[in-house]
Amino acid sequence: MSAITVLALEGIPEVREGDDLAALLGEAIERGGGLRPGDVLVVAQKVVSKAEGRVVDLNDVEPSDQARDLAADHDPRHLEVILGESVRLVRARAPLVIAETRHGFVCASAGVDRSNAAGEDTAVLLPVDPDASAQRLSARLGAPVIISDSFGRPFRHGTTDVAIGVAGMAPLLDLRGVRDSVGYELKTTTIAIADEIAGAAELVMGKTAGIPAAIVRGLAPSGDGAARDLVMPPERDLFR
Amino acid sequence: MSAITVLALEGIPEVREGDDLAALLGEAIERGGGLRPGDVLVVAQKVVSKAEGRVVDLNDVEPSDQARDLAADHDPRHLEVILGESVRLVRARAPLVIAETRHGFVCASAGVDRSNAAGEDTAVLLPVDPDASAQRLSARLGAPVIISDSFGRPFRHGTTDVAIGVAGMAPLLDLRGVRDSVGYELKTTTIAIADEIAGAAELVMGKTAGIPAAIVRGLAPSGDGAARDLVMPPERDLFR
Repeated sequence: MSAITVLALEGIPEVREGDDLAALLGEAIERGGGLRPGDVLVVAQKVVSKAEGRVVDLNDVEPSDQARDLAADHDPRHLEVILGESVRLVRARAPLVIAETRHGFVCASAGVDRSNAAGEDTAVLLPVDPDASAQRLSARLGAPVIISDSFGRPFRHGTTDVAIGVAGMAPLLDLRGVRDSVGYELKTTTIAIADEIAGAAELVMGKTAGIPAAIVRGLAPSGDGAARDLVMPPERDLFR
Repeated sequence: MSAITVLALEGIPEVREGDDLAALLGEAIERGGGLRPGDVLVVAQKVVSKAEGRVVDLNDVEPSDQARDLAADHDPRHLEVILGESVRLVRARAPLVIAETRHGFVCASAGVDRSNAAGEDTAVLLPVDPDASAQRLSARLGAPVIISDSFGRPFRHGTTDVAIGVAGMAPLLDLRGVRDSVGYELKTTTIAIADEIAGAAELVMGKTAGIPAAIVRGLAPSGDGAARDLVMPPERDLFR
């Protein structure tokens, strides 16, 4: 029977700036029995960002007037950090901001997160170049890597984990030109498998159990690409 | 090591109107070794719709002027069916229509699909009440059931499978009020686990292999709810 397995990578310690994340992941993988051909490693953005020092002490942040406006009765320093990570505000309803990041991702708070940080007065930013971060981890660990983060979606309640960095696999499975079981050509079917893999990994990684990585086994994705392939080109985006 | 497994349910024959889908699924489950406590059954919308007779012969469809406008040089009968399934057009760029269905889902073509149908001149509609469809299957099979469909998303390229019908589990995992590993309260974290489960199942079900169902094992979701819980309430939707 065709199957995939999603395995939580346990025992990874709290990650701090300058830590060798690939080494920490490699040790956890070895404890879990090692990688097999076709395995995909999913790593939570939070630990990648922390290892890369993408942590801001809010006590060092001087909020602008715009940040104070957007914050309403919330912390304007947090909004100031969000503005610094944004190239475009897509929606704003104080204190909620949906912004486009420099990577092209559209998400709440431009990916800036205060939870799971080193303390209550810090904020964690997205990696500067999550695809490059994924490439470095993939080269060290010898497997495709997805860096995941929890994004909300327009129209639907709740977050799902999606891929913000990809290396060693094509994030999109393009079925255009393939014929289905009754011969109808699937003209427009492109599946964001990297996002589905990230979501599957989230199911075992949870949010509070301190498990920042998972192995997805049995899928053996092919090709190559990057998470920037998942950004809808502006000319095709009906929601810009 | 904490793990979940996603198992493809193989050997389900082509489904037609009036077929006893629960019986077909039950036979495939038995061949696969039966269900275990905590298993979630994911069933592709297409077979649910076919069993319920939600198939339209396009030769019986008379397109309206609006359908002809929206179709441009594509089949106006297809657009007419889409309009009949829509309560609101969210975006339109001929021949692409993003519409809100009567269930509150916002998706391409109001969920109307021409692929994998009984023939090239048919269209398959979403079930009239996918939550009720899930409840019926759940009651017959004795496990939580998710009915899944492939939806596009604003801002991101490619589709992911999401839950359009849910029974026997809460589709949202609400972590509000939970404290993370450094004591920061996760104030706004609600995870759409039913969507992540649907996406994980898609990874094994594929699009052309004729596998319309999967078992997700090891997760044991709790609670109760329906896919309508995944529809963002209009007053909280910044994208309306």
